[in-house]
Amino acid sequence: MERVAAQPVQSRSGKTRLKRHFLTTLDRTLPELRELLERARRIKSGAAKPDFRGKAMALLFFNASVRTRVSFESGLARFGGHPIHVQPGKETYVFEHRDGVVMDGPTQEHVREVAPVLSRYVDCIGIRKSDLITTGATTAEVTGSWNELRGDDFLKAFAKHATVPVVNMESNFEHPCQELADRLTLAEKLGDPRGKKYVLTWAWHPKSLPLATPHSQLLSAAALGMRVVHLRPPGYDLDPEVVAVARQRAEASGGSLEITDDVDAAYAGAHAVCAKSYGGIGWYGRFDDERRDKAALRPRWIVDADKMGRTADAIFMHCLPIRRNVKATDGVLDGSRSVVVDQAENRLWAQVALLEQLFEEWRAR
Amino acid sequence: MERVAAQPVQSRSGKTRLKRHFLTTLDRTLPELRELLERARRIKSGAAKPDFRGKAMALLFFNASVRTRVSFESGLARFGGHPIHVQPGKETYVFEHRDGVVMDGPTQEHVREVAPVLSRYVDCIGIRKSDLITTGATTAEVTGSWNELRGDDFLKAFAKHATVPVVNMESNFEHPCQELADRLTLAEKLGDPRGKKYVLTWAWHPKSLPLATPHSQLLSAAALGMRVVHLRPPGYDLDPEVVAVARQRAEASGGSLEITDDVDAAYAGAHAVCAKSYGGIGWYGRFDDERRDKAALRPRWIVDADKMGRTADAIFMHCLPIRRNVKATDGVLDGSRSVVVDQAENRLWAQVALLEQLFEEWRAR
Amino acid sequence: MERVAAQPVQSRSGKTRLKRHFLTTLDRTLPELRELLERARRIKSGAAKPDFRGKAMALLFFNASVRTRVSFESGLARFGGHPIHVQPGKETYVFEHRDGVVMDGPTQEHVREVAPVLSRYVDCIGIRKSDLITTGATTAEVTGSWNELRGDDFLKAFAKHATVPVVNMESNFEHPCQELADRLTLAEKLGDPRGKKYVLTWAWHPKSLPLATPHSQLLSAAALGMRVVHLRPPGYDLDPEVVAVARQRAEASGGSLEITDDVDAAYAGAHAVCAKSYGGIGWYGRFDDERRDKAALRPRWIVDADKMGRTADAIFMHCLPIRRNVKATDGVLDGSRSVVVDQAENRLWAQVALLEQLFEEWRAR
Repeated sequence: MERVAAQPVQSRSGKTRLKRHFLTTLDRTLPELRELLERARRIKSGAAKPDFRGKAMALLFFNASVRTRVSFESGLARFGGHPIHVQPGKETYVFEHRDGVVMDGPTQEHVREVAPVLSRYVDCIGIRKSDLITTGATTAEVTGSWNELRGDDFLKAFAKHATVPVVNMESNFEHPCQELADRLTLAEKLGDPRGKKYVLTWAWHPKSLPLATPHSQLLSAAALGMRVVHLRPPGYDLDPEVVAVARQRAEASGGSLEITDDVDAAYAGAHAVCAKSYGGIGWYGRFDDERRDKAALRPRWIVDADKMGRTADAIFMHCLPIRRNVKATDGVLDGSRSVVVDQAENRLWAQVALLEQLFEEWRAR
Repeated sequence: MERVAAQPVQSRSGKTRLKRHFLTTLDRTLPELRELLERARRIKSGAAKPDFRGKAMALLFFNASVRTRVSFESGLARFGGHPIHVQPGKETYVFEHRDGVVMDGPTQEHVREVAPVLSRYVDCIGIRKSDLITTGATTAEVTGSWNELRGDDFLKAFAKHATVPVVNMESNFEHPCQELADRLTLAEKLGDPRGKKYVLTWAWHPKSLPLATPHSQLLSAAALGMRVVHLRPPGYDLDPEVVAVARQRAEASGGSLEITDDVDAAYAGAHAVCAKSYGGIGWYGRFDDERRDKAALRPRWIVDADKMGRTADAIFMHCLPIRRNVKATDGVLDGSRSVVVDQAENRLWAQVALLEQLFEEWRAR
Repeated sequence: MERVAAQPVQSRSGKTRLKRHFLTTLDRTLPELRELLERARRIKSGAAKPDFRGKAMALLFFNASVRTRVSFESGLARFGGHPIHVQPGKETYVFEHRDGVVMDGPTQEHVREVAPVLSRYVDCIGIRKSDLITTGATTAEVTGSWNELRGDDFLKAFAKHATVPVVNMESNFEHPCQELADRLTLAEKLGDPRGKKYVLTWAWHPKSLPLATPHSQLLSAAALGMRVVHLRPPGYDLDPEVVAVARQRAEASGGSLEITDDVDAAYAGAHAVCAKSYGGIGWYGRFDDERRDKAALRPRWIVDADKMGRTADAIFMHCLPIRRNVKATDGVLDGSRSVVVDQAENRLWAQVALLEQLFEEWRAR
């Protein structure tokens, strides 16, 4: 992901200031990520209490949401801030982000206007825009390749023209708030996670789901210095840039990264198992074909008691929503080692910490 | 309605605590209901002022709403709290509540996850889920019997897995917030309502509307010790369990319950007339047939000046929304004895009192 | 526009009080408008700080919105108030406003109920209801004439029955909050605007857009005593009542009003150019015909660098959203004289000032 954050910007008033968005964690250093984690712990424990009074944040959801929206709204409101939930296209005009377009088609307003205008009204803008998040039995209408979608063009154009911090609430490429929450959860549940074994396993699912979350999950464990194992069938590798950064972070923190399709070996001795389904990079634009191709994987790629029995009493993680008895069995989800609810709760604390930091940096300029 | 509230729950942390929901008033005693009423009066008069600062409440609306939503939002916000309005299915994933399902169909997230997760984000969760609330000219697509719907399975499953209080904002079976508001209104308008005559009259309507509100209206007047008369054409009895509790409450409070189809006798000497349309229990799943069958009832079952003229200058009540000149005439609604706006206002005060009580009970554990 | 504000109302409690809505500025005097402007400046500069704590405002949007909604929400929240965003028809029942209707069709609730009920829950009610605001490539389904639509019957019926101030957030006839924001912008950017030249120019657009905003823009500059020029092709005159009031205001303030189709002469020496597209009054109900008829106007009626070059270094104004390279070129919008973002920001300050005034007047009674 091209990094757009922390660039100097000449504002209309002539003042130069740094924009610091949170579109990706690829532009954060390991110490910066550790500081965010520590901040989240302090707030969760009650040792620190942010003050968001007088602050408003616009939450732009192009896609459905439960956790992201409610945790952001609640996190702001509990500390005195005010969320504004906006559903672009449903409640607003239709936005354009490409430069130079003659806008005589369906798009009505350019990010060159809407991003700076919203920046005048609010102190932070969150955006969820993913081409693969759908509701019910609806499937995505993606026709482009992964290479076209991984650029997150809309998000980056918006961030470029915004004059307040923009937070990625899940794009095609990354779900960095999930990364923060998962890291907080691993640190809470495993004591010192360094050297412990973390398995991110692909799971079968009737749809082709986004890559953003598995990307952020891989990065999450890597930065803790864990022995990260990415378990997936052939054809389900993650984006090479993410894999490279994850490997580098794991090694810099005393851990490692292994990619395998050996289910039994992967589960053996694991301390954390994180399940995620996602569409294969090579299948983008041909998801009907993928559905047929992956049908045979279904029985083998579900997390069940048998597989969890091979682990070192591993915790079970999932970002939610999860389809029960499809990605994991009732037994695993209702068992005492499932931490999915705690993990979801940590979205709130991680995001409150992030907002506190973004607002502080903003004030400091 | 099976009572799910006030059951001891083993929380994940090992602490046992009582969950106290507000799904029904059938699990409340008469003194408890009186205390809520008194609390609402004190808050409305300004003698008491709740403090909801730092509190967030999720409001899950599966159906349209005006009063319920705005009164909850305003009631929270006026006292420092924060409402989060969520439209499941439209803005979220599609929820499942049945146990043991292999979720490879349209449902995406189970209440076993979403209820405890939301409980981590907010201090209270309101749910409106009724199979018979529709907008515009749309009619309900109910194909099941009343016996299937009266169980409110989704609501109860959600409440079972939630770890904060859940408030019923109207289910198939009951609308307990309306009950509180109506009781407050009767107490305000009639001085001492004991022994006074309350008529709940069925009214014709183009659609088949839910039973929840007439249930709660019957219970409302009964608990005040009024002479309650349920006036309805044959085939429009309320649920036997509600009728039994209403009778018991009326008698325990010095009142009575009578069921009749004698329009003239019912209105005679009434102190309060409350109009409500609803689908007959026996017609559930066959609403097209009901529409044809009830056509002949239309002229007789509207509240008009003539009928109101037979009362002892009765107040006119309706839960709203009301179709003018269908359920009651313009003359009745615009007349000086209509209290429908005051009744709607009391939703706010009753709910603020309820939330204050739920939050207090919660803190006390 | 018939004036419904500031009429004495007998409330149910017997008290008589004045209702003071903000449906139009036609019922405001020039000194009153100046006071609002001064109030907005003071708040924007930080010299005054409204206190909206404990105040709630319902924002009823029948149409899409970006600026109006987010600026109202943020303006309320920053000063302690609470907005409640409501989408009638989508999230509520379907409303009726005509008197005497037998409501057995699609409408479910009358403004005679919903307006006073909402007035019990909130301290102010904003309404956006325009027949010509659409999203994406959708076009309006207006079949009536301008004479039918200009009355804003729903808005006026709602205001008549509301018992708290009602704010017009854009109707068919007027967009008075835009007028306030534009006046604030002109005063900020032009120093003393008296006698300076303001050009409101029609622009080509694929759709037929509402007249409300150009009406309010004309009034905006007129009240500042500017030399107002309305530049439009034949057939695109504004409503005669608005033109008359604008002329009267301009002349009373030392300015003038001229209407012309001479593009070159209009731009010459201008200090402010404000672009707006709108459907011709004579085309209402026949917008397909209008589209064909106006096709030839497209190349001539775009704001571009060439036209702006004829001005006295004029600022460029637009209410947004704007279709780039359709109504104005990228060069104009990205140039240093474009003030569209500042103009949008001023929506917030103008509205905060308005709300402060409405709340004060309300308290004073």
